[in-house]
Amino acid sequence: MAVITRRGFLEMVGALAVAAVGLGCSGRNQTAMVTPTPKGEMFSSLPWPYKKLDPDKVADLAYESYMKHHCMYGVFNAVVKSLAEKVGYPYTVFPTELAIYGKGGVVGWATLCGALNGAAMATYLVLPEKEADKVINELYAWYEYSELPNYIPKKPVKADLNPFPKSVANSPLCHVSVSNWCKASGYKAFSAERAERCGRLTADVAKKLTELINSVYDGSFVPKYSLDKRTMTCRGCHCKESALQNTRGKMVCWECHTKEGAKHIEDLEGHPKV
Amino acid sequence: MAVITRRGFLEMVGALAVAAVGLGCSGRNQTAMVTPTPKGEMFSSLPWPYKKLDPDKVADLAYESYMKHHCMYGVFNAVVKSLAEKVGYPYTVFPTELAIYGKGGVVGWATLCGALNGAAMATYLVLPEKEADKVINELYAWYEYSELPNYIPKKPVKADLNPFPKSVANSPLCHVSVSNWCKASGYKAFSAERAERCGRLTADVAKKLTELINSVYDGSFVPKYSLDKRTMTCRGCHCKESALQNTRGKMVCWECHTKEGAKHIEDLEGHPKV
Repeated sequence: MAVITRRGFLEMVGALAVAAVGLGCSGRNQTAMVTPTPKGEMFSSLPWPYKKLDPDKVADLAYESYMKHHCMYGVFNAVVKSLAEKVGYPYTVFPTELAIYGKGGVVGWATLCGALNGAAMATYLVLPEKEADKVINELYAWYEYSELPNYIPKKPVKADLNPFPKSVANSPLCHVSVSNWCKASGYKAFSAERAERCGRLTADVAKKLTELINSVYDGSFVPKYSLDKRTMTCRGCHCKESALQNTRGKMVCWECHTKEGAKHIEDLEGHPKV
Repeated sequence: MAVITRRGFLEMVGALAVAAVGLGCSGRNQTAMVTPTPKGEMFSSLPWPYKKLDPDKVADLAYESYMKHHCMYGVFNAVVKSLAEKVGYPYTVFPTELAIYGKGGVVGWATLCGALNGAAMATYLVLPEKEADKVINELYAWYEYSELPNYIPKKPVKADLNPFPKSVANSPLCHVSVSNWCKASGYKAFSAERAERCGRLTADVAKKLTELINSVYDGSFVPKYSLDKRTMTCRGCHCKESALQNTRGKMVCWECHTKEGAKHIEDLEGHPKV
């Protein structure tokens, strides 16, 4: 198969569209395909054009999408399909099934929460790197420190509990997030209730992400979540521009470095013991 | 803007190409755009067509790509650009900058190693879900248990050490992987040497991934890495289809659950203490 460059692709699309006008092709499709982004670029160049979305509608679609292909796809598909409806091409042709891989913290490894993985990927589709990083930092910190899930589906798919058990994840990691919810709720990690919890959490992440991207889009973004005081204390000695500089990261330290880590911080700065 | 469905897009491309022939458009571009994949599908449908790649060449490109946009982009861009050269469209138009977000375990959060995140994403681009999951399981286990990095660049970019310090990550997480390398090497987490290590590790991951996908492609795939015995012991009580079922995951348990977890396993099964 011949290789086509991005410039060649764009030129051809333009040429074909012009040809199509003369042959009476549908103006609707033609418009969707050839309208350039605000920056005059198309598919191969990020970020793609954005229009403000309704966070509650994106949440509903994320919940539905979770039930189809799990957590990462849940958030990513909801954002992309919502933009396909509101913006059109190129969102209309993106293969969102690419994001299925994040399920269960990447095919069950329970590393990064799939909802957060899909959220970060979606953010890079619509925002420049600097703005995207601010949104991701805010979203991840909100996820770590908030009692979730809050989303209530119109028709619960896996389990209908009222009130629905909540927990604070204390981590962006699937393993920790799920374990803490199991501990708080008493339900098992492979139960229908846990699947329902992750579906609702996926909706919460999609809603929060949409609110954050909307706020960057209209210039009202103000970060509200900083890292917690104890984690900042740890980072002061162990992270970037510190004395020891023997690690990296923004995750809550004392969730994994429990007894010894907590005692160490308490000794150093008088913070309350975990 | 009007919404265009995938079917509508494909039909339009066909119609426009037919129109273009009549108007004397370039046959080369036209062929590249409308030639279907071997399965009769195009951009929106996964997996995309694959042709066997040279693992060493992909590794070289991953190392170069790391130096441009970090770890996740390093692996993902190397695979996609290599396939753009060998297969052509649709790899030629994919915006690989999408994968920059995984840098430093997602914008410095040090969650999932970006090289592994990009590898999983690339795998889902080229393999069906079932085969992709096998490749990812094998790649992640290899990464956890292997002494890395092995890759030696022709021209080291960040630091030229000989021999280059290696470590066993014991985890797919950036935070743990980096910390263990810092401990083994004595270099700091934000040093040029650590950046060099992650660039070489990115090349290693890209090479291993290419070997694994090639082996699935030609039918010779045989998994060699299973989870370690102690982690399997933990999973026997705490994970899927177990008595407690209070967590999930395939990461090495005893890397984070150190003293108490290790003692607990030793008491139960007589495994050596960590």
